[in-house]
Parts: sequence; C-alpha cells; structure tokens
Amino acid sequence: MFKQRVFIILTYLKIYMNIDKQKNFSEWYNTVLDLAELSDIRYNVKGCIVIRPWAAKTIKLMYEEYEKELERNGHKPVIFPALIPKKNFDIEKEHVKGFSPEVFWVEKAGKEKLEEKLALRPTSETAMYQMFSLWIQGIVDLPLKVYQSCQVWRYETKATKPFFRSREFYWIEAHTAFATEKEAIEQVKQDMQMTEHVVFEKFKIPFIFFQRPEWDKFPGAQKTFAADTLMPDKKVLQLPSTHLLGQNFSKAFDVGYLNSEGKKEYVWQTCYGPAISRIYGAMICIHGDERGIMLPFEFCPVHIVIIPILTKEVAQEKITQYCHSVYKIISNFGYRTILDESENTPGYKYNYWEVRGVPIRIEIGIKEVEEGKVTLALRDKKEKEQKLLVAVEDLSQRIRFEANEFNKRLEKRAIDTFQGLQTSAYSIEELEQKAKDFGLIKIPFCSIEANGETCAKFLKDKYSLDVRGIKYLDAEKPIERKCIVCKKEAKEFVYVAKQY
Amino acid sequence: MFKQRVFIILTYLKIYMNIDKQKNFSEWYNTVLDLAELSDIRYNVKGCIVIRPWAAKTIKLMYEEYEKELERNGHKPVIFPALIPKKNFDIEKEHVKGFSPEVFWVEKAGKEKLEEKLALRPTSETAMYQMFSLWIQGIVDLPLKVYQSCQVWRYETKATKPFFRSREFYWIEAHTAFATEKEAIEQVKQDMQMTEHVVFEKFKIPFIFFQRPEWDKFPGAQKTFAADTLMPDKKVLQLPSTHLLGQNFSKAFDVGYLNSEGKKEYVWQTCYGPAISRIYGAMICIHGDERGIMLPFEFCPVHIVIIPILTKEVAQEKITQYCHSVYKIISNFGYRTILDESENTPGYKYNYWEVRGVPIRIEIGIKEVEEGKVTLALRDKKEKEQKLLVAVEDLSQRIRFEANEFNKRLEKRAIDTFQGLQTSAYSIEELEQKAKDFGLIKIPFCSIEANGETCAKFLKDKYSLDVRGIKYLDAEKPIERKCIVCKKEAKEFVYVAKQY
Repeated sequence: MFKQRVFIILTYLKIYMNIDKQKNFSEWYNTVLDLAELSDIRYNVKGCIVIRPWAAKTIKLMYEEYEKELERNGHKPVIFPALIPKKNFDIEKEHVKGFSPEVFWVEKAGKEKLEEKLALRPTSETAMYQMFSLWIQGIVDLPLKVYQSCQVWRYETKATKPFFRSREFYWIEAHTAFATEKEAIEQVKQDMQMTEHVVFEKFKIPFIFFQRPEWDKFPGAQKTFAADTLMPDKKVLQLPSTHLLGQNFSKAFDVGYLNSEGKKEYVWQTCYGPAISRIYGAMICIHGDERGIMLPFEFCPVHIVIIPILTKEVAQEKITQYCHSVYKIISNFGYRTILDESENTPGYKYNYWEVRGVPIRIEIGIKEVEEGKVTLALRDKKEKEQKLLVAVEDLSQRIRFEANEFNKRLEKRAIDTFQGLQTSAYSIEELEQKAKDFGLIKIPFCSIEANGETCAKFLKDKYSLDVRGIKYLDAEKPIERKCIVCKKEAKEFVYVAKQY
Repeated sequence: MFKQRVFIILTYLKIYMNIDKQKNFSEWYNTVLDLAELSDIRYNVKGCIVIRPWAAKTIKLMYEEYEKELERNGHKPVIFPALIPKKNFDIEKEHVKGFSPEVFWVEKAGKEKLEEKLALRPTSETAMYQMFSLWIQGIVDLPLKVYQSCQVWRYETKATKPFFRSREFYWIEAHTAFATEKEAIEQVKQDMQMTEHVVFEKFKIPFIFFQRPEWDKFPGAQKTFAADTLMPDKKVLQLPSTHLLGQNFSKAFDVGYLNSEGKKEYVWQTCYGPAISRIYGAMICIHGDERGIMLPFEFCPVHIVIIPILTKEVAQEKITQYCHSVYKIISNFGYRTILDESENTPGYKYNYWEVRGVPIRIEIGIKEVEEGKVTLALRDKKEKEQKLLVAVEDLSQRIRFEANEFNKRLEKRAIDTFQGLQTSAYSIEELEQKAKDFGLIKIPFCSIEANGETCAKFLKDKYSLDVRGIKYLDAEKPIERKCIVCKKEAKEFVYVAKQY
C-alpha cells in the first residue's frame, strides 16, 4: 500500500509542473520539452534532437498551413537533392564566404572516395539556381516561383537549443525569379504578408519585420528583411526572413533570358525561409504558462480530451457508456478527440493533458450523465473560472465558440506581452537601464549602412545588444537626433535587443 | 510568317508524343518525364534528380494519403535526425554488413574533422532503436508505433532511373515494438492491408505480396514481405516491404522492459517502408498511355482544365466571360481547376494538358455558350468517344460521376495488364519460352530456405530471372512436383521475374 502511494506520487510529479515562465525561462522550457514529450536531446549526435510525436504532429499541421499559403500565392512545390557539389558553392563569393564555416561535407560513400566533395545543403540557392538557368529561356518562363519543405544542416558553433537552434532543422525555402526588379520587390512584400497571415494570424505569434543592417544580411543578398519576436526571457528570436537577391545570383549562375530585342537580361530574384521547427519553439514559449504548453486550437494534436469521473462503483458502466457516446458525437464534428480511459486518476489525467496544452477538457461524472450535460474546462483559465456545464445538444456550437474565444485570448496575451516588452531609449544610460526590463528598445542610431557597424559592435561588446535594424512598416525617421553611441547625426531609429 | 509557322510546329512537337509504352518503354518513360516536366536529370550530382512541380505536387498528395492511413492504424509521426553515428551501425551485425557498402559518410564540417564519422541515413533502425531503448521502460509504453516521412540516401552502384532508383529517395518508414511476437506478426499483416488500401485502392497499382527467400531478406530481419508490381517492359518493381525483425534489433539495442515478475523481456519489432517516390514512378508507368501520363483523379495536380475555343472574333468576350463563370462554379465544388487563357492554340493546349494527365478537359466555344452547356472530354478515351455535352447545372453531379468512372477504368486496365503478364511454367524449357512474353512466372522450386540459393543463382545467371519468393496470400503448395532446376522435391511454388 505504501509502495503504491509512493509510486502514484512519483508518477504524479513526473507530469505536474508549476514553473514561472518569466522568472525561470530555461527551467520552464527544458521541463516542458520533457514533460509534454516534445523532443529528446539524448540522441547521440551533438546538436541534433529527436522530435517526438506530440511536437511532430503540430509541426506537420504547421507545414500544411504554410504550404497552402504559399500555393495560394502562386508558389509551386519542388524537391531538390540535399547534396550540393562544392563547385556550386564557389560560384557566388559572398555566399560561399558566409556559409563555408557551417557546411557538413560528404566525401566518402561505401568504401569509395567521391570524385567531388558534396555539401549537405545549408540552404538551396546554389542547388536551385543552376537549374533555374536551364528552366528559364524566355520571358514566358517567368515569373518562376517554387518552394520546398525540407531540412537543412548547419554546423552551429553557438549553443544549440531544441527547436530554436540545432544542427539539423526543418524549414520551407521559397525561391523566385522575375523579369523586373519591381516584381522582386513586390515579392518581398508578399512574403511579409504571408508571414503576417500564417505566423501571426494562425500561429498567434506577434513580430516586427526589420530591414537588417548592412553587416547582418543574408550572404549574397542586396537586402534582408526578418521578423523578430520576443521570448519570455526578453531575448529576440528571428522568425522568417526574406531576401532581395537582386541580380547577384542570376549573374553568377547565368539565369537569364533573351528580351524582345534579342538582348540577354538577367532575372531579379528573392528567397524566403520560414523555419517551421523554430516557429514551433516560439509558439511553445509564447503561449505556454506555468502548467505547460498551449497552442492555437487548430494546431493542437488533440483538440478535446474526455475524462470519465468514476466515483461511485455502481454508476461506472453508465458513465462509461455516456462517455463513449459523447466521444462519438464530438469526433463526428471533426475534432481530434481522445477519451482517456487509462487507469490513472482524474487528477493525473488533468495534468497529463494540461502540460500538453489540449485546449478543451470534458469531464463526465454521474451528475453530468443524469443531467444530459458535460462539464467543459478550458486549458488557459484558472481552476475556478474554467468550468462550464453544457448540454450535449449544444456541444457543437459551444465548442466552436469556445475554440474561437480560446484563440482570441491566446492572441491578446501574446500581443500584450510583446508590446509590454518594447520601449525606447535616448541615451546610453537610459538604454543600459531599460535593457534590464525590456526586450526590443528603439534608439536613435547613426546608420544601418556599413559605416554604422562600429557603433553596433560597441553595443554588442558592452551590453550584449544586437542592432536588429529599422522597422519595415511605419518606420519613423529621427529628426535632429544624435546617435546614442557616436553622437553623430542619427539617420535611423533602430531596434536593439539581446539574442540567443 | 514562315518563321512563325516553324516556331508553332516546333513548340507543338515539344509537347506532343505518340510512343507505344509496351514497345518502347524506355523511350516512352524518358519522353514523358521530360514533356510532362516531372523530373530533371541534369542536376549535377550523379544519381540524384530534381523533382519538378507537377510530380512534387502528386508526391505530396500521396504522402498525405499514406500518412492518414498510418495514423488511422495507430502510428504517430516522429522526426529523427538524418545523421547517424557510425557506432550505431556497428551494433547489429547483419544490418551493418548489408548497408555499409551503400552509406554516404560525413566526416568534416566547416574546416573541422568531426570526432565521429556520421552516416546519412540509408534507413533509420539504428537511429531509432537506441531511443526506443530509452522510451520503453514498462509494458505501459507498449505498443510503440511511429513513422517518419523523410528521404534516405543509398550509394547505388546499379544504374539509376528517375523515381525508380536514385541515390536520394523519398519514403515513409514505420517502426514498431510490441510485447509479444503475435502482435508483431499482426502488425506485418496490418502493413500489408495498409498497402492494399493505399497502393491498390487509392493509387490503383496492382501487386502481389511475396515472402522473400532467405537470401533476399532485409539485413537484420527474420522475415521480409514485399509487394511486387510489373512495369510495361515486364520487369518487376518492388513496392512497399514489411519486415518481421523479431528480437534481433531489440537484443542488440537493449530495447526491453521488466515484466510483472521483474524479469527483463525484449520487445518484438517490425518495420515497414513504402517508398513514395518509387510508387509515383510505378503509377506513371502503369496508368500512362501513348499520349502521356495518367493518374487516379484525386492525385492529379489539376483535376479539370477549361479551354476556351475562340473562333469567331465577335463572340470572344462572351466566351471568355462564360469560361470565367464556369471556372468559378467548378472551383467552388472543390476541384483543382485551371482556365488556360494562354495564347497557344486549342490543339497545343489539348496536348499540353493530356501529356500531364489532367483527367477532365472542358471545352467552351460559341455553341456551348449559346446552349448553356460545356463539352467534357475524358483523358483516357479516344478522340471520338471522349466528348460529352453537359449542361452547366448538371456539372457537379456529372464530374463526380465521371471522376469515379475514370478511376474505375484506370483500375480495370491496370488489373487486366498485371494479370495478363502472369503465367506458370513446369520445366526449364517452358520457363525460358514464357520469359519472353510474361512478367511473373510461377514455377515449382526446391526451397526458399538458404539451401535454395544455388538454384536461384542458376536462374539468375542463365536467364536473368530473380526468385521473388512465395505468394503470401492464397499460396498454393506443389504436390509431388520437382524443382525445375535441381529436380529435387519442390517444396514451394515461387514466382520468378526480371528486375531492374
């Protein structure tokens, strides 16, 4: 008897958490990855993790959502090999400089040495654009807009963190070619809109798009725009980025066509890379609470869990039957539903599904059976205010309503938190002070051209603050302000933040 | 004027094919890959191809179908790293022997030499089962059923062929662990049923499941079962295979649990591997005809193409408007529809969409507009019998009906062809004769145990015929027959065939 109790307490502890996300973010994140069984860091290749079913299912749903959005916007799927010959990398010189330190190389197969060194793709420009050069012959072949859902490998030397940064990660890369620069610029804007539609409207992750400074561009790009969000420890996390490549790659890879006058024209290109596994990590951290993870309703592997409350011996069969019929009704609505008939206690089950973020729990005991109702509990509400008694015939409408409300609350909390972590500073002293409590801080700054790098380096070395760039939308320009570092004329308001 | 005509004829030739699939299979296949823009073999890594949008879209739909089936059967998605340490491979000795010659090795990253050699996964047993060993502690953790959709790399020395065999290919691998052998055997049967549900019922590819002979098993398996289909050149192509692993891997990787008596028990395992890209290749070859590819309705990237027939100058606007309204109506039914308003001639458009296998074409000219109808042409019917005049208000019902009939005809043709290529032979002479005209030939054979390998080798060396094994379902046993090679008692009827 005693042994059994100890066992129950131990397994209970195994699934119960109560950690303040803001105060102990690292502990919170590691615990949640473990208790909700999202990932396993014990895989024996450094910097690589295993993504377990609960996370893999959501990531799959996120991919579907993003792919739909890309296809709606005229992108078509392709599948390119993961192996890229070294010679392809050597073609665009900025690109090779940027990526060489991060590339995994394949030089042997079986017992043979390969004729040529092959890279595991860190990104696919150099694989794709040689093919673009074959596919694009005339203006009729433009625009070309393709995407692929795949993994990439980068030999990170920074500390890895599950979903945030690992040596193999899962993304979508979309690549385009246009006849004119104007269309390429329009594509960059469309990429930002897609990010808004999916990352904010669907995944409920707030962000700001920044134009990155000259020294922080994608290797080979003319301009880089990236969405930044904030984590509970106030550090920024980069989400999708889109790059105006101009004609850098098209000239290097000879991607062009003959215009009506028979003259060769090079195409204008862009690329866009939402890292789905990282966005998943952001979603976990932004929406979770002290009891575990939360996810927007549509992206939870299970929408609704039904838990029978079997108190009186006599009514057990009745309750079980009722649970099965409710399960059938709800499943037929199209919701991913689980009826948890395991031998664990209701309390254990509550915690088990709460830590995993199932948005709606249905409790059914003898009272519910007798009244033809169910008790509905919402994942994000506190114990006392979370329960609602709902008649079975009202369930369809009520679940739809509550799912929608749940998502709205998720979104509102995320926006409030994100905005609450933004501020501005007009002197180094103010910046130093505010950096303790805020995430993204707006400052007057000399320039995001190459000549601003010295000031950026100063902020990085002294305060660990990175210059994230200027806001892409609603960018204010400083009027008669000085750069808070060099005191020269401030051409821009930039945002600074700590990053991983 | 002359120049323009030549141009029209040339572009017309670029999309028109008329090749007999049975007589010139290789030419047919290469032409169709090119004209329908399915793949590009010009990618500059040997044995690797680019999968272009028309094929990538279908492959994506096939993955979704297969994943749904696996999840219905209790498998959960996981995502494992593609990199596997060499030491993992060395654990199961049959497995390492079988796969070592095919493994691509990563030994460097950036400028550094890695501490340990890493394999690009040729299959994931050795990545997954070390984790299974951590995840499975008690009987409550069983059964464990997971799958991942991913690519694998194998350094093939045989000739590669797009979709059929390449050095990087796209598959699903499902891995399971059970407490008992009985459950593992049931899983193998379930794998065969899933193959039936998806590969036959959805993709319309007929096949036979064979138990492979002892000398042709998956390295490390106790028993291997594989589905074989036949290509138009009468060669067999292996489709999904499922393997009873027994306790070979669980003992090697220490995957077990303590039973109720506190004694260690090893789990019983299976794995199952449908190679989606190869099944796609099979689908192309089985359903295509002299005019191009065909696909079951659900798996075609475009279900319906609408082609305006603009003959009279005056009516052009009327026809165009009508086309747009029909396009809207059909799209709203949920069909993937294209209205081809390009400047090409109707004849060019017919060929363009026929070679790509769009199942339903809608032609709209002035006659259709005036009658409130459309002309429907079905991809698989000959020119004269393919056209139907349908009223717009009947379109919803009619399309559903025709799509279903189209699939039925596809299925019937596939079955008829497959069965027509099967026969039996009772002597070496008969076998030699029949091998010219048939694909799968049933023969009395000594044994599929190790002692049958000499006879199998004889058939391979002399007639290029492979012993594919014994039929898993409805297997007949020979009665008082002799092996047609060694003349000893025939224990089995085996099927032999030529393979790629």
